[in-house]
Amino acid sequence: MLKIPAPNEIKNAHSRIRPFIHHTPVLTSSNINSVFDTECFFKCENFQKAGAFKYRGASNAVLSLKTEEALKGVATHSSGNHAGALALAAKQRNIPCHVVMPSTAPQPKIDAVRHYGAQITFCEPTLKSREETLDKVISVTKATIIHPYNNFNVICGQATAALELLEEVPGLDIILAPVGGGGLLSGTALSSGYFGKKISVYGCEPAGADDAYRSIKLGSIVPSVNPETIADGLLTSLCDLTFTIIKDHIHDILTVSEVSIIKSMFLIWERMKIVVEPSAAVTLAAVMENKDLFRGKRIGIILSGGNANLRNLPFYLI
Amino acid sequence: MLKIPAPNEIKNAHSRIRPFIHHTPVLTSSNINSVFDTECFFKCENFQKAGAFKYRGASNAVLSLKTEEALKGVATHSSGNHAGALALAAKQRNIPCHVVMPSTAPQPKIDAVRHYGAQITFCEPTLKSREETLDKVISVTKATIIHPYNNFNVICGQATAALELLEEVPGLDIILAPVGGGGLLSGTALSSGYFGKKISVYGCEPAGADDAYRSIKLGSIVPSVNPETIADGLLTSLCDLTFTIIKDHIHDILTVSEVSIIKSMFLIWERMKIVVEPSAAVTLAAVMENKDLFRGKRIGIILSGGNANLRNLPFYLI
Repeated sequence: MLKIPAPNEIKNAHSRIRPFIHHTPVLTSSNINSVFDTECFFKCENFQKAGAFKYRGASNAVLSLKTEEALKGVATHSSGNHAGALALAAKQRNIPCHVVMPSTAPQPKIDAVRHYGAQITFCEPTLKSREETLDKVISVTKATIIHPYNNFNVICGQATAALELLEEVPGLDIILAPVGGGGLLSGTALSSGYFGKKISVYGCEPAGADDAYRSIKLGSIVPSVNPETIADGLLTSLCDLTFTIIKDHIHDILTVSEVSIIKSMFLIWERMKIVVEPSAAVTLAAVMENKDLFRGKRIGIILSGGNANLRNLPFYLI
Repeated sequence: MLKIPAPNEIKNAHSRIRPFIHHTPVLTSSNINSVFDTECFFKCENFQKAGAFKYRGASNAVLSLKTEEALKGVATHSSGNHAGALALAAKQRNIPCHVVMPSTAPQPKIDAVRHYGAQITFCEPTLKSREETLDKVISVTKATIIHPYNNFNVICGQATAALELLEEVPGLDIILAPVGGGGLLSGTALSSGYFGKKISVYGCEPAGADDAYRSIKLGSIVPSVNPETIADGLLTSLCDLTFTIIKDHIHDILTVSEVSIIKSMFLIWERMKIVVEPSAAVTLAAVMENKDLFRGKRIGIILSGGNANLRNLPFYLI
């Protein structure tokens, strides 16, 4: 039986991590509101420590460990924002962090994880090699594996972004969050149900990586196979815990085109003067592609992160 | 005899424009502080309406007009942030705005000025053509020319950015502002002297457009001739009012290389996740090039604007 986070467990997570995270601002843009005839409230997790909401879940997982577990450290395999976030959360608690990364990972991501003090073990760029290499690391270190999303404490942490948004902005009709593995969307859906009033939660997903959309339509997990999208944080598949939460707690999943993702990312950068990564922009892309659905609504938007590759931006494509 | 803004005139300007401008946030970055061993407080005028501090001065100039003058409209020649800011300020007061722009101006800047409702008259890309065309526009419309920086009310408006920074952050040792025509630096220097305590104000300028540096060293205005810099907001020369204020009220002018400007801009985008234009980054570039001067200091930094060309970024150069 899967354990679903309860309201007090999300509140407790918030109390636990609050001294360590940034309370990120909620920004608005009169320009974007006029373009779509909406009131959008952007929860800016691009300003979160390590540049993404992932630090919330990683911090909650690390801080929830008992001392004897914690001393053995934490471990994960990831080439993305979770690795950096976990490394920083471990550094903050002064415990070891082991990260398995594919040898093909981009140098800036390797540098970021190393900068936060994690031990990196390289592997082949396959899921099999990642899992086998992580097993070897664990057998030596006895570190606790912190899964990037299919983890109770991680989901409680991710839920605190929507919790803060709801505390700050009353009367939201809708909340939008991107969906990759589903940790952020799970937490967002739970907080919206527990702490909001009649809020419709939509997951937003690239059409080129629409495994969550298909999973919800089918009623069982459809793995992400050969996803193709610029939104590199949304390539992963749902797991049992995130699938269970999402299917019961969201209104729907909206898929968006690559062109809409890039146009939305451009709009956010140009009008709001903030840096968000493509995975964050799928939310506004869903507004762009479904104008009638969102017209006149008060919409909370979780801008998931800001770790864009500044030397390889897609704006020349639009 | 040139009239220099007095403390109450800056305060009055602030009261006048406050309902119309954004009270921009002051951001900090623990990462950037640790890189330079400083405490930097970034006044984010990139989040100002029309994307730059220019809206402060333009608003104050427009709102200071008597009704009969205002009804005839305002006019300027500019291809940069001042044109957009003046157009928006005029639109806000519901009066005409006439902008003379070189026919070679980039399409996004033309679009922005048009979007804010200004009448555009195109001219040849020479100062002579700009001034002659503006004279013609004025002779027909009787509009009031609002100079982008050599204007008492404009300087009072620009001074309000530092005023807000000083109200929010006590105990600053230093304030840095970019210098082009000198409107922002004049206002910053006056506010720092009037409302701060023993603050050293430095102007920051590209070495490739160092006319303000040379003007201060020589003791008279040296025109900007064939400036070469990526900081396209800092190509202009000081005029009598800005030169007079700056020479008496600043500590020094620091010039910086193009590489430092691009590196600083990258650092701000990557670590702070905000979009600033090259002209804003000359300030942090001065910290980068003068580490000993700034080590251990509390530094206010005016991030002047965020109107960067997102389709033509210089980060591949570093």
